[in-house]
Amino acid sequence: MKDKTEKNETLTHLDANGNPSMVDVGEKNITTRTAKAQSIVEFPIDVANTIRNQDNATKKGSIFQTAIIAGIMGTKKTSELIPLCHPLPLDKCNIEIEWINYTEVRIISTAKVTSKTGVEMEALTGASVAALTIYDMCKALSQDINIKETKLFHKSGGKTDFNR
Amino acid sequence: MKDKTEKNETLTHLDANGNPSMVDVGEKNITTRTAKAQSIVEFPIDVANTIRNQDNATKKGSIFQTAIIAGIMGTKKTSELIPLCHPLPLDKCNIEIEWINYTEVRIISTAKVTSKTGVEMEALTGASVAALTIYDMCKALSQDINIKETKLFHKSGGKTDFNR
Amino acid sequence: MKDKTEKNETLTHLDANGNPSMVDVGEKNITTRTAKAQSIVEFPIDVANTIRNQDNATKKGSIFQTAIIAGIMGTKKTSELIPLCHPLPLDKCNIEIEWINYTEVRIISTAKVTSKTGVEMEALTGASVAALTIYDMCKALSQDINIKETKLFHKSGGKTDFNR
Amino acid sequence: MKDKTEKNETLTHLDANGNPSMVDVGEKNITTRTAKAQSIVEFPIDVANTIRNQDNATKKGSIFQTAIIAGIMGTKKTSELIPLCHPLPLDKCNIEIEWINYTEVRIISTAKVTSKTGVEMEALTGASVAALTIYDMCKALSQDINIKETKLFHKSGGKTDFNR
Amino acid sequence: MKDKTEKNETLTHLDANGNPSMVDVGEKNITTRTAKAQSIVEFPIDVANTIRNQDNATKKGSIFQTAIIAGIMGTKKTSELIPLCHPLPLDKCNIEIEWINYTEVRIISTAKVTSKTGVEMEALTGASVAALTIYDMCKALSQDINIKETKLFHKSGGKTDFNR
Amino acid sequence: MKDKTEKNETLTHLDANGNPSMVDVGEKNITTRTAKAQSIVEFPIDVANTIRNQDNATKKGSIFQTAIIAGIMGTKKTSELIPLCHPLPLDKCNIEIEWINYTEVRIISTAKVTSKTGVEMEALTGASVAALTIYDMCKALSQDINIKETKLFHKSGGKTDFNR
Repeated sequence: MKDKTEKNETLTHLDANGNPSMVDVGEKNITTRTAKAQSIVEFPIDVANTIRNQDNATKKGSIFQTAIIAGIMGTKKTSELIPLCHPLPLDKCNIEIEWINYTEVRIISTAKVTSKTGVEMEALTGASVAALTIYDMCKALSQDINIKETKLFHKSGGKTDFNR
Repeated sequence: MKDKTEKNETLTHLDANGNPSMVDVGEKNITTRTAKAQSIVEFPIDVANTIRNQDNATKKGSIFQTAIIAGIMGTKKTSELIPLCHPLPLDKCNIEIEWINYTEVRIISTAKVTSKTGVEMEALTGASVAALTIYDMCKALSQDINIKETKLFHKSGGKTDFNR
Repeated sequence: MKDKTEKNETLTHLDANGNPSMVDVGEKNITTRTAKAQSIVEFPIDVANTIRNQDNATKKGSIFQTAIIAGIMGTKKTSELIPLCHPLPLDKCNIEIEWINYTEVRIISTAKVTSKTGVEMEALTGASVAALTIYDMCKALSQDINIKETKLFHKSGGKTDFNR
Repeated sequence: MKDKTEKNETLTHLDANGNPSMVDVGEKNITTRTAKAQSIVEFPIDVANTIRNQDNATKKGSIFQTAIIAGIMGTKKTSELIPLCHPLPLDKCNIEIEWINYTEVRIISTAKVTSKTGVEMEALTGASVAALTIYDMCKALSQDINIKETKLFHKSGGKTDFNR
Repeated sequence: MKDKTEKNETLTHLDANGNPSMVDVGEKNITTRTAKAQSIVEFPIDVANTIRNQDNATKKGSIFQTAIIAGIMGTKKTSELIPLCHPLPLDKCNIEIEWINYTEVRIISTAKVTSKTGVEMEALTGASVAALTIYDMCKALSQDINIKETKLFHKSGGKTDFNR
Repeated sequence: MKDKTEKNETLTHLDANGNPSMVDVGEKNITTRTAKAQSIVEFPIDVANTIRNQDNATKKGSIFQTAIIAGIMGTKKTSELIPLCHPLPLDKCNIEIEWINYTEVRIISTAKVTSKTGVEMEALTGASVAALTIYDMCKALSQDINIKETKLFHKSGGKTDFNR
């Protein structure tokens, strides 16, 4: 019994009966909250070659630009996608993409809000949608693209700050 | 010049000017197409303990059930999220979640359609949204949850079948 | 055991493990399918007076016209709202609203598709959204409006026809 | 003339020309506002038997859990569905479902916001979407399921409190 | 070099690398902001005749009422449609439509918010969606309908007021 | 009387009572249908200078690329935005943007489907959303940007072909 109570306290998204339930943020403080998340997309070497050559030829970086737009729009859809997320009036969200070695790009997704609850899920959703978009635009080249290490690496403005 | 032409042929989502462009599927055959993708969610051991205990106590499996629903609904939103995906009348999509070791769950996402184009992105999007939902429901417990290995492992009904 | 199997056969939206799952319609026949559903909105007499007077004064019928538009747009959102509904390319949907006595209006919602699966949920969702819209536009007048008897009354084109 | 003015004052969602118009809430006070609404879903006795047996067998309560998730997500979509509703940053919404006799379940939908306008429509929409989801998951068993008595039963934080 | 810096300062929606980026409004003041935009729809004379006759016959003004509803709902979708727009909790939005000469209607779209950023795009999007809806409802009559002069004509509450 | 009947036949989106109603396309032929529409965005000369300089400096064309993505995604949202449009499984949609003189760009939006009904509204909606996106990205520079001449210029695959 005691055990069950403890569990329900920590699994904040379940109610006393174990059913899914949105957290009530009504009494929480309004602060400026920021979160940063990443996804890493790993390409087979041939795919990396093709993307890098195309980018050099046209300077447009269309694959990454499309992913940036999709990631930003995906960030704004977080509360539509994740059942227990609150709809939030974001102050800003953005996506940056950089090569971290010859075959891997890192997507950095930032979300910021002045609100009662944090934006970790917004940052993570933005990174995931940007990663999926890169996958989509390159999938004709290979079935071995891998989206790896989608995780949070910075959070501020809530009860505890966090930096990886 | 020749080089550039080749690149534009393989990067199917860019037009002759290097701008993003949806592939024309008008002339492709209507076939039954299936895709299966996965995401793996890795928990710190304390989080794994809590989820497993909660599930044993209530039998409800609410976290996974919520993720299943979110993943199915996310699959149906693929063409809204991924800019160059076609809207498709899915025959079926579903999500299964299983523990593959003490601290990791594997999400298996299946999408099926009778259409002119495949459903890899639908399967991948469903897996990602289910993974993000699990993350959301457990994020109060830890900032070290990691979504890893989102990738395709089965595809049939298109030009070439694929199985990992 | 036998019992459980039977149950899972009839509760078509649960898989063998009791988890929610979309029905696979891949092998079903493409036919013209129609469904009709209704909702009845019951007003306190003062509210009925006000709506009827307003309508007589302006001839515009703005409350009902707004509800018709909202119902049609809601019908098109069915697969976004109901987790296990298939996205369907509707041939038509429409909403009619009529007074059935001094204080009650009946919303009739029709959906039609040429597809592998039926449109009951589309018709029911359209009726519900139209009813909620009428409620919204009159709610400043009373807290006693009641949406009652949302149900199916016609279905054709599937395995068995149905008429109430 | 006087008559017409009065009518337009009470039918708050119509402008001076009788056209639909969103209420301006710009000058209203920001308060914590809560609303509770219900829908009752009435099953034929055979359907009630099947749901109750399935639930006893698996403990999962998947039908109700799916409806809870759909209802929460539907609540968040209120301003997309109901033309003249304001988009609101909800503090919380949730859905509870309980058997009130052998053949009827009551869905209780709660919405809460700190804002300039109330959340009656959010609570009502959440209840309706949860009810439609239960209908969907059981519709293969019968065409006689009925959604009845969708209505408001509690409201606080606005000009006048209300409790049924 | 200096030149480039200047350009990036003015093109506020591009970051230092020239990639699209949402403006950070976190530090801006919360004020009441209003914007008004218009679209003009120009009909061939036969189409104007038909609309005017139909409207005279039924008093319903269904084409304009449908456009009003669509415009309001479109206004609320602005941040979903325009990649770098912030999601905003609108205080009000509305659409008015008037004949400005025998063959042209003017759509006036107003949006109002108490927020850190303005609502020009909301007003413009509402006008555009209303115009497209009028087009849709009349397109069977002619392929020569033209949507012209979608532009801003009033803005207040931000750094500088504006009136055309 | 006769007159009224004629009008309702031509205004295809109104029913016999003058209420808005979706056209039933159930009996129409499935053909390959294409539509092309345009919007022209007219900039003040200073804005044209800034865009042209930025584009020369970075080669990225980020404003137009963002508009292309937004236009494609907007095209896919047509049936969500325009109340009486059918949801359609598009074969392709795309957006091209070109300078037609020093201060004006022309957006060309193409939509293609194999279906029972045409895609004029899809093409027009895509052009409008792309135009609004360009407006958004340049609006900090001037309040005098104008979206003009949104119109259809090609249609094929339906009852009658059309080319401007």
